[in-house]
Amino acid sequence: MRMAGRHFLQIPGPSTVPERIMRAIDMPVIDHRGPDFAAVGLKALEGMRSIFRTTGRVVIYPSSGTGAWEAALVNTLSPGDRVLMYETGHFASLWCKLAGRLGLRPELIPGDWRGGADPDRIETRLRQDRGHEIKAVCVVHNETSTGSVTPVPEIRKAIDAVGHPALLMVDTISGLASIDYRHDEWGVDVSISGSQKGLMLPPGLSFNAISEKALEAARTAALPRSYWDWAAMKEPNEKGYFPYTPATNMLFGLNVAIDMLHEEGLENVFARHARHGAATRAAVRAWGLEVLCRQQGQESGVLTAVLMPEGVSADAFRATTLRHYNLSLGNGLSKVADRVFRIGHLGDFNDLTLMATLSGVEMGLAKSGVPFTPGGVEAAMRYLMDNEPAASVVAR
Amino acid sequence: MRMAGRHFLQIPGPSTVPERIMRAIDMPVIDHRGPDFAAVGLKALEGMRSIFRTTGRVVIYPSSGTGAWEAALVNTLSPGDRVLMYETGHFASLWCKLAGRLGLRPELIPGDWRGGADPDRIETRLRQDRGHEIKAVCVVHNETSTGSVTPVPEIRKAIDAVGHPALLMVDTISGLASIDYRHDEWGVDVSISGSQKGLMLPPGLSFNAISEKALEAARTAALPRSYWDWAAMKEPNEKGYFPYTPATNMLFGLNVAIDMLHEEGLENVFARHARHGAATRAAVRAWGLEVLCRQQGQESGVLTAVLMPEGVSADAFRATTLRHYNLSLGNGLSKVADRVFRIGHLGDFNDLTLMATLSGVEMGLAKSGVPFTPGGVEAAMRYLMDNEPAASVVAR
Amino acid sequence: MRMAGRHFLQIPGPSTVPERIMRAIDMPVIDHRGPDFAAVGLKALEGMRSIFRTTGRVVIYPSSGTGAWEAALVNTLSPGDRVLMYETGHFASLWCKLAGRLGLRPELIPGDWRGGADPDRIETRLRQDRGHEIKAVCVVHNETSTGSVTPVPEIRKAIDAVGHPALLMVDTISGLASIDYRHDEWGVDVSISGSQKGLMLPPGLSFNAISEKALEAARTAALPRSYWDWAAMKEPNEKGYFPYTPATNMLFGLNVAIDMLHEEGLENVFARHARHGAATRAAVRAWGLEVLCRQQGQESGVLTAVLMPEGVSADAFRATTLRHYNLSLGNGLSKVADRVFRIGHLGDFNDLTLMATLSGVEMGLAKSGVPFTPGGVEAAMRYLMDNEPAASVVAR
Amino acid sequence: MRMAGRHFLQIPGPSTVPERIMRAIDMPVIDHRGPDFAAVGLKALEGMRSIFRTTGRVVIYPSSGTGAWEAALVNTLSPGDRVLMYETGHFASLWCKLAGRLGLRPELIPGDWRGGADPDRIETRLRQDRGHEIKAVCVVHNETSTGSVTPVPEIRKAIDAVGHPALLMVDTISGLASIDYRHDEWGVDVSISGSQKGLMLPPGLSFNAISEKALEAARTAALPRSYWDWAAMKEPNEKGYFPYTPATNMLFGLNVAIDMLHEEGLENVFARHARHGAATRAAVRAWGLEVLCRQQGQESGVLTAVLMPEGVSADAFRATTLRHYNLSLGNGLSKVADRVFRIGHLGDFNDLTLMATLSGVEMGLAKSGVPFTPGGVEAAMRYLMDNEPAASVVAR
Repeated sequence: MRMAGRHFLQIPGPSTVPERIMRAIDMPVIDHRGPDFAAVGLKALEGMRSIFRTTGRVVIYPSSGTGAWEAALVNTLSPGDRVLMYETGHFASLWCKLAGRLGLRPELIPGDWRGGADPDRIETRLRQDRGHEIKAVCVVHNETSTGSVTPVPEIRKAIDAVGHPALLMVDTISGLASIDYRHDEWGVDVSISGSQKGLMLPPGLSFNAISEKALEAARTAALPRSYWDWAAMKEPNEKGYFPYTPATNMLFGLNVAIDMLHEEGLENVFARHARHGAATRAAVRAWGLEVLCRQQGQESGVLTAVLMPEGVSADAFRATTLRHYNLSLGNGLSKVADRVFRIGHLGDFNDLTLMATLSGVEMGLAKSGVPFTPGGVEAAMRYLMDNEPAASVVAR
Repeated sequence: MRMAGRHFLQIPGPSTVPERIMRAIDMPVIDHRGPDFAAVGLKALEGMRSIFRTTGRVVIYPSSGTGAWEAALVNTLSPGDRVLMYETGHFASLWCKLAGRLGLRPELIPGDWRGGADPDRIETRLRQDRGHEIKAVCVVHNETSTGSVTPVPEIRKAIDAVGHPALLMVDTISGLASIDYRHDEWGVDVSISGSQKGLMLPPGLSFNAISEKALEAARTAALPRSYWDWAAMKEPNEKGYFPYTPATNMLFGLNVAIDMLHEEGLENVFARHARHGAATRAAVRAWGLEVLCRQQGQESGVLTAVLMPEGVSADAFRATTLRHYNLSLGNGLSKVADRVFRIGHLGDFNDLTLMATLSGVEMGLAKSGVPFTPGGVEAAMRYLMDNEPAASVVAR
Repeated sequence: MRMAGRHFLQIPGPSTVPERIMRAIDMPVIDHRGPDFAAVGLKALEGMRSIFRTTGRVVIYPSSGTGAWEAALVNTLSPGDRVLMYETGHFASLWCKLAGRLGLRPELIPGDWRGGADPDRIETRLRQDRGHEIKAVCVVHNETSTGSVTPVPEIRKAIDAVGHPALLMVDTISGLASIDYRHDEWGVDVSISGSQKGLMLPPGLSFNAISEKALEAARTAALPRSYWDWAAMKEPNEKGYFPYTPATNMLFGLNVAIDMLHEEGLENVFARHARHGAATRAAVRAWGLEVLCRQQGQESGVLTAVLMPEGVSADAFRATTLRHYNLSLGNGLSKVADRVFRIGHLGDFNDLTLMATLSGVEMGLAKSGVPFTPGGVEAAMRYLMDNEPAASVVAR
Repeated sequence: MRMAGRHFLQIPGPSTVPERIMRAIDMPVIDHRGPDFAAVGLKALEGMRSIFRTTGRVVIYPSSGTGAWEAALVNTLSPGDRVLMYETGHFASLWCKLAGRLGLRPELIPGDWRGGADPDRIETRLRQDRGHEIKAVCVVHNETSTGSVTPVPEIRKAIDAVGHPALLMVDTISGLASIDYRHDEWGVDVSISGSQKGLMLPPGLSFNAISEKALEAARTAALPRSYWDWAAMKEPNEKGYFPYTPATNMLFGLNVAIDMLHEEGLENVFARHARHGAATRAAVRAWGLEVLCRQQGQESGVLTAVLMPEGVSADAFRATTLRHYNLSLGNGLSKVADRVFRIGHLGDFNDLTLMATLSGVEMGLAKSGVPFTPGGVEAAMRYLMDNEPAASVVAR
């Protein structure tokens, strides 16, 4: 049977694609070597610089975000290089495994999945590395599996405090364009992102933002690379072209997405997500459930992972919200499989969509027989009313 | 500034068009006289019979619903004919004015806009009409300006009780495909509808369903007509064609809409809207506000009109929900202008969209300083949980 | 079996809708009474003034072009009024029948379907009408059934020569925005048009442009009217709104269409179609076939109707081009049914689409066994090369 | 200034995307880990097996075709492995460079760019390789830069004739689904393809089809890999899922593309392209120009590369066809830059689109002052008429 009405895709990405973006993607493919393409390519590359907040180089790949993880490593490192990673959650762990498969020697500082990467522990480890064997420190800005944010500027400080020359690489696949991110100001060497989160596109594009230091490292990095090679991008990118066939229609959409973000204003976008994250946590607390992230100030504006009471299946609950309320929630991954569900409040999202989502969660909790206290919807609504956005945000 | 996230278009029509329908509308125009068109036309005409629940003729116009009002009258009546109408609200009054402009002598039984047409008063009036001067009784099935439903079968009974030969004409522009409607079983002579409500299309198509008796009347009806002429439609329609250029792409969409309604099942569609209407009224009562319709059992599943407390501007409130919550609500029309707002819960609509809408109303009431009791969202959610749809409706 | 590749819809309307327009139509419906709608409505009304080349009033209907025919008559005339029409072809005859059905007394000057309306014969008839019983002269600017153009300014002169007060009404349904048209300069009182020809939209919108004199006539015109009533449009239109639900998404598309026409420049649009008409006629002549229009200077830039040799079925030929070459050509209507086929070269059309179309015709002629001389494609290509558009037209 | 009418994108890929496919891509993104996704994934994987004509494994990447080249190599080979390649043109050379960058030792048998790979020279080289140092023979099925087809079955025979254990890898990025290809029957070990050619999608997906022998090789292959790793795909793919976020909307489109190919019938698709290739060559010969491919029987049905007379700039000519005729042609690459232009006749293409394209070329040749003999359009049309497709192909 058909489920009536709009599906609520409230997983932590892909996020819902606005019609304006979809209509751009839906235009006819053009010749990616022809004269009209240059403006498309240049706008996308320049626009992504404004989103990453960098004046340096940005590279765009036709690939999922995973590809941009790989790109960051293969362009800057050599076989056997040590990289220091931090287990903020599932995706940090996956990136670590990926590094291993590429012939690097990753070291994962264990974490409890309930907060961002801890700058102190990174500093401690780097301090021990007198020989500077560690070539890169890799952290996840917004850990999509847990809803925790790593304080990137403090990681930078930790590295600098030791005077360690390691590159700082940051996965902001799910953070970029939803929560504050500043490639240049924060001293990141390689930033990694993807299209299907804050950028409001379908999956299929990924990005690297690259510091001068990372470009320098690329000159001697010995890991084999071709598809991901930054160097090959340089010359064609300067004129708006790509060394191989780009995902033309996705670039049409990207350019509209960048316009939309600037029309709203990045600061407003960040404030909007922060407010929705806080409202969501107010709901979770009212339900008597636990937010997975327990580091105050590190809770994500992108998504909220919620711990189920012991013995209660998060996946059975999610199946109920999907079947009865046409609401997709994110599943718990690996260590927290079936233990948590994740509420995505990223991308092109607003107050009423949040209220719809939390209503679906509250009704689903009841319907699934999860022990909880009603009132989360009410609490979130109260939060939204008590914490209005700045006046400028509602003007039309 | 850009308003983030999806717009909630919760006016009582146009309703939100599902993507599946929009994608059909978005296909290339074809030759409306070519061989491929016939299947499109035949499917639309046959499909609309199944929606009107008639085995008789259906006519499709490229026009708004207003056109189909005019069509019903000009095909069956002659200059100076008396028609009996019932003031259920703004649209009944408009139809009456239209009849006057066409040279008929309409008589409007005055109503208080707070319920459907009263069969007793119609019966009383018809009983006085010994000479059978009244040629048609015209009622509005779902009065879009008030959210009240006329009990059509009882109107039929009233006419039959007197043995009056008047035609029964029913405007079900906003009722069809959202709440129960049965052209044949209820003995309606001309049913009138439009595309942009329960049929989930953009505005641009309108419909007549026609009884044998109405066709018979058309043979002698002397009002001039051409665009609306049923007779000219007959022969081309039989092969799936139209006497003038049809709105081809809208017909593509209509055929998908009909498929979707049958996939869900008309009975399920009706139950869905009834449940959402009841949940909405639970919210209104909890807020301490008044539902405009006060005839029990005649409250609409399509929309709910809400009376504002004396002295409070409904339009100022609606401007607030639009500006702050990206929510469009329907305005009060003519007699109730600025006194009521209307919540549309018609068409492709579900539990979470209702919760979003009611949350927007509740937050908007607070934001606008309307005196009200919080708790409507909670009450509606409670209603939804206590009144689940039949098990079949959630199966996939 | 699936026909590979793009379908060539070369009937004389609907014309092929450009993707840019389709993407606009495909955006979400908005509240037609909400604040955002006003800009849409105002732009459409103002834009259509620029296309009709009038500073007066324009009215937009959700209907096919046939509706706008009816609108022109019912707004300005009274029952029994005489109207003078001219049989340029099928559509002029249909309009005449329509006038009769509305209670007017139309008089059709017979024509041979091979040219535009003859100003001399109109002048002669008006001269006889000493009592000024004729209230309107109605001509078809571009007769879609024959491909002949009526010299509208000369019709105006003919009326003025006699000092006759009749209104001049012109059907430019298929002419507008493909060939030159000037409502004000040519002294037209009511111009009639539709969306699916030069305006490059799907069918579903129609238009009237109205002179002061016609507005004056409307004040006393006694034909009943409601849907088509100009007066009811006035007040809402002034703010960008409509008296009943407009075809919202079509208006989105219309506004893009108007932009596209002005980006190209109306003069360039007209030159383009004139050139394509001439190239088509060069092909027809080379094939040894006859162009239906035999009045030099009155051949249409919109379409070319081609006479088949005696005894050869035009419809069988058209079935062949459809089945074998994925090409839809227009059929002969009424008097010339099966005797002519019509090549549409209107709307968003260019040199290569013309070459494709003419190739399909030439191959179809051969395939169908029609006696003809090969070489039409060659002749048309030669014409295009020998008659280049102005340099400005190719610049990007 | 706006160029009127449809753009003709006749480069050898991306090909024009049919509306039916675009509408599928344009549907809302769904949860790639949710229950509804499985059917999408399974259909795509199974469908691609039917297109590659294999019963073995197929892998789908969110990447351009270049990525699938890299995937083929990194999954099966180890650093320092020798691979034998054949210089059929620009893309074969690029693939060779890519192999070098990955740490392999590629050997490129030099070619003149005017035919497919020569089985004899491959056999000769393999015969010398007594130690079986060559681990893979890599050829391009349809060389997109030259329009020449390598006889893959004969390459297989050459390898077998020597009893050499090298894997056979074939790039059929631009060949698949336009010209005959049979992964299993031809004994290919790894086939490589992309979305934007015969599959009629925008760029953004790439494919590997994999033999048992290649899977076996993958078990010991030591090149580092993660994004491209076949092994990681296996388990999720079996249930229709992917190890990382797939390009969801492209998969929606792929499934429609596969349906369309089977609706037409792969044999009919191949016959269609062969016929269009032959007609194009008839035009080129009539113009007195030279087809780049001079190996009879190896001319491509996908594209035709045309040599310009000495001293004539192909790029200036292409700029003219774009500027004056809204026609994009493919440019000459590296060795033949500015010396050839390429006419794409791949994907969703038909007789009239070919005629439009060749008309644009002929008019462009004249306009650019290229010395040539008129008559190519005529010759192609003659070829099409003299060589009709099988009767079944036109039936509807």
